[in-house]
Amino acid sequence: MGQLPTVEDVARVAGVSRQTVSNVLNSPQIVKPDTMTRVKAAIAELGYRPHASARRLRTRKSSTIGVRLDPMTNGISGSLLDRFLHALTEQAAARDLRIMLFTAQDPDGEIDEFSRLRDGADVDAFVLTSTVHDDPRTAWLLENDFPFVTFGRPSGEDDLGAPIHPWVDVDGFSGAQQATRHAIDGGARRIGYIGFADESTTALERRAGWAAESAERLGLDAAELDRLSLAVVDGVPQGNAAALHLLGLPTPPDALVCASDSLALGAMMAAASVGRSELPVIGYDNTPVAAAVGLSSVDQPLDLVAESALELLFGVSGSTIVSRIHSATDPLYRLLTPTLVARKPTQLARVETSGSPVAGNHNER
Amino acid sequence: MGQLPTVEDVARVAGVSRQTVSNVLNSPQIVKPDTMTRVKAAIAELGYRPHASARRLRTRKSSTIGVRLDPMTNGISGSLLDRFLHALTEQAAARDLRIMLFTAQDPDGEIDEFSRLRDGADVDAFVLTSTVHDDPRTAWLLENDFPFVTFGRPSGEDDLGAPIHPWVDVDGFSGAQQATRHAIDGGARRIGYIGFADESTTALERRAGWAAESAERLGLDAAELDRLSLAVVDGVPQGNAAALHLLGLPTPPDALVCASDSLALGAMMAAASVGRSELPVIGYDNTPVAAAVGLSSVDQPLDLVAESALELLFGVSGSTIVSRIHSATDPLYRLLTPTLVARKPTQLARVETSGSPVAGNHNER
Repeated sequence: MGQLPTVEDVARVAGVSRQTVSNVLNSPQIVKPDTMTRVKAAIAELGYRPHASARRLRTRKSSTIGVRLDPMTNGISGSLLDRFLHALTEQAAARDLRIMLFTAQDPDGEIDEFSRLRDGADVDAFVLTSTVHDDPRTAWLLENDFPFVTFGRPSGEDDLGAPIHPWVDVDGFSGAQQATRHAIDGGARRIGYIGFADESTTALERRAGWAAESAERLGLDAAELDRLSLAVVDGVPQGNAAALHLLGLPTPPDALVCASDSLALGAMMAAASVGRSELPVIGYDNTPVAAAVGLSSVDQPLDLVAESALELLFGVSGSTIVSRIHSATDPLYRLLTPTLVARKPTQLARVETSGSPVAGNHNER
Repeated sequence: MGQLPTVEDVARVAGVSRQTVSNVLNSPQIVKPDTMTRVKAAIAELGYRPHASARRLRTRKSSTIGVRLDPMTNGISGSLLDRFLHALTEQAAARDLRIMLFTAQDPDGEIDEFSRLRDGADVDAFVLTSTVHDDPRTAWLLENDFPFVTFGRPSGEDDLGAPIHPWVDVDGFSGAQQATRHAIDGGARRIGYIGFADESTTALERRAGWAAESAERLGLDAAELDRLSLAVVDGVPQGNAAALHLLGLPTPPDALVCASDSLALGAMMAAASVGRSELPVIGYDNTPVAAAVGLSSVDQPLDLVAESALELLFGVSGSTIVSRIHSATDPLYRLLTPTLVARKPTQLARVETSGSPVAGNHNER
């Protein structure tokens, strides 16, 4: 790499001193316009670039964002964070920012990495995912006053009035509400719900969206809603089992809203297996699998999530960290609205077509 | 960040000069053992870390690997490269290496990024995926003598004898051969093949594995093999259509081997739709979807691919680039063998059970 052009090369070609080149790079306001033009032409001609590490050392700016890559999950919804990473990397590139990936076994290990990356001026900010209630990672970053934003609001906190830290989230209440509305508009009057068996904001919100819409539009009371819903671990077999249970009720549901595409895929298969392949099933996250099997699903706007995260860190444009103060007109958070992608089950329609007589067979057994 | 311990702090606590601390960090061989012990104790006590950017500037070593993140593909097999990225990030972390992600619109844009990251000493090496025949990116890296390894052998080249550059690949011939063997062992005697409509090494190899095994074990000739195979664009609907075509032949296949899980999922649904849900279908890449629907599939050992890539760059351990010379005992490439993961279609078995009578209905129509 000895052939790389140096400041001396630029100075020689531009016919100026080394100090003048340095001024152009670091104090452009004191350089005369025609000198500036000559030096910039020499920089362009030679392809000179100030050494990135030297620049980082001087400015403590790395133009790099740190992101922890979670261990691979095997669910079909696991790809959501990968899709977010793609969106973030692309949006960051448009601002000349890069992504530094790292892994950690646990929150303490992640905090060690925060500390190392901060000390080395390797990153300017972190983007965190999979936050939990009382998250030690966000506590450390706040205490150390290091810039970050989370995808997911502080769990268990209704902090719209006074955000603890910058966050971007997608409104799960609205998503489940839209899914339920879609089923009602299609003629359903008793909509079952298969959700997550945990106390996360995500789990609570999505169920609340389904429950509110069912109560308001269909007049179902809380006891009825309890009978029509199950909370399970996320996964295809779990969705299958839950759907079989709900479809076996004395008064079974006439549509199913699910908190994930994994649950919905299992539910779709369960419905087909008991001769009810016409049953509307709606998933969540709009995964490639939903598109592949023609499953309606709630889509989280991941490009917009990524754009909003960068905006909270770096402003509407640029690549320099901005300090933000929470205000009514410029809040520290962005709560985005998902959209329902309605599909016809084109693939399973084939099973449905030949499967229709099965309903009769099944009922006769 | 003013509280970070400095070299001066370490010197004061250890009771040595600043130069001695510098010697411990940069020229340990000239430091007396007891001095070394004192300085190291002070470094540990204070949590001192040499500034990463300064160290990079001095050593031109970043302990970082550059990886281009491809645009998101929407196929269910698209997650293969994401799963490889997870494996690579985790294996790299075990060597104290990190991953720098970037994007590019095209090969020229990617080469610009190579150039920038090299000039800035931001990365020590690149890992490339999705290589093509006569790839301009690998040509640039070879010309500029910058360390890299590819996941995927140089396309269209049989270069085992004299590799053009370090590469890791998974043997597609073996994968398709194992899938075909599995079907034969299960009793199949005419196995259809749904592959990719391109001239890539991947496409050619996988078809060759199926064809060789079918010819050898089942005595099928080339004309028969041509009738039993189709080359299509990767995707669920394409797999569905191709399977319907093959199952409509006068002498239809009694099993299907597919070049991807997307194609296999489509084929599985097609088989169910014509009352042949018992038809063995085998996919490729062992995606989460294959696990979810109980589809047998060929698994690429991505952890081993990542480990092998790092070994070719950094040796069996450590984080410093090694120079390798191709030899018979230590070749510049690693050709890994995939394994077949056999599954019973647990989910679709439900459809199968209630779908069995459909076969009769279908034939009567």
